Amino acid sequence: MSLHRQPRFISLEGGEGAGKSTVLERLAERLHATGDEVVVTREPGGTPLAEQVRRLLLDPDHEAPAANTELLLVFAARAQHVRETVLPALERGAWVLSDRFSDASYAYQGAARGLDAGFIAELERRVVGIEPALTLLLDVPVEVGLARIQGRGGMDRIESEHTAFFERVRAGYLERARAAPGRIRVIDASQPREIVGDLAEGLLSAHIQANRA
Amino acid sequence: MSLHRQPRFISLEGGEGAGKSTVLERLAERLHATGDEVVVTREPGGTPLAEQVRRLLLDPDHEAPAANTELLLVFAARAQHVRETVLPALERGAWVLSDRFSDASYAYQGAARGLDAGFIAELERRVVGIEPALTLLLDVPVEVGLARIQGRGGMDRIESEHTAFFERVRAGYLERARAAPGRIRVIDASQPREIVGDLAEGLLSAHIQANRA
Repeated sequence: MSLHRQPRFISLEGGEGAGKSTVLERLAERLHATGDEVVVTREPGGTPLAEQVRRLLLDPDHEAPAANTELLLVFAARAQHVRETVLPALERGAWVLSDRFSDASYAYQGAARGLDAGFIAELERRVVGIEPALTLLLDVPVEVGLARIQGRGGMDRIESEHTAFFERVRAGYLERARAAPGRIRVIDASQPREIVGDLAEGLLSAHIQANRA
Repeated sequence: MSLHRQPRFISLEGGEGAGKSTVLERLAERLHATGDEVVVTREPGGTPLAEQVRRLLLDPDHEAPAANTELLLVFAARAQHVRETVLPALERGAWVLSDRFSDASYAYQGAARGLDAGFIAELERRVVGIEPALTLLLDVPVEVGLARIQGRGGMDRIESEHTAFFERVRAGYLERARAAPGRIRVIDASQPREIVGDLAEGLLSAHIQANRA
């Protein structure tokens, strides 16, 4: 019942305002330089149906989902994403780079919303079954991250949570990283954008080398 | 971790073309005759968000959900339905009559799609927590049920499944009934509509009496 670690599956994680979008571009460029096929995807989402679930999750105007509803919607979208997008790409030999994956559920639905990590782990084993071989965690103090996103305009339902919520998200991510230091690499994302990008690209390059040898 | 059985919570179950709508009206009328508040609801659905999930599940035009995706979407909607609609109504002292509830997941996602009943039971314990005190199962041979719905026009994604699928749904429901004979009462719904309605109303009346004494 353990998760199947996929060498060509990379995920990027981090709280609000950690700078994931910029780093994602750098990582995608680095992967394209291998000459192999690269699939860049995101969660919640990554298939047309999963993107519709994402809309239900993030729309700030409709009825808020209960914590358990949110958890099951996220894993429903993930099950679909894995079957329709991630696994077919890996089976073709492509690299898959996902903006968030299962670690986000331990941080957001587990640590921040207080749902049982054992239940999350069971959902992961039952309906996901795989994990990335490399996860880059962009870690930034909550006040720094929130200051960055406040310039952006309209916030979605998750972005509108309070500071204590994001402190729990951050702590949840760091706890995941401590438990899986071989897979999850933490990058101090309060540094200038260019340095964060260099660090991320360096870790990815080392991973590519290791998987070539 | 066992389910909390709710005396004023009634569910109606059955496969396609079993005649649930007609019986639902009879049961609602009988409950209204008690003078108490009555909430008639349905699954998947029963809240605005859960109805949106229903649309994702039943739309025949978009990408079909994987079996696990379908299971988690159904339980996401159910978790929301229980928290937002069913429990508040029961706490007010209302009767709640639901067109389908958890038994449907054992029949459709368990028996018919082949998902593990132990996982379904865990989802039920974790995110639902309650069960009806009385469930009426309208049982009809598959060919009779399908002949009834074929006159209706456009079929949704579930209604478009093949006969073997509906045979498994029927067997799954009957197995649930054998395992919980005190709660689930089976009605032979191949009989004329009026007789089926009388039988259903009779069972409900006995339940109301028993809960008055």
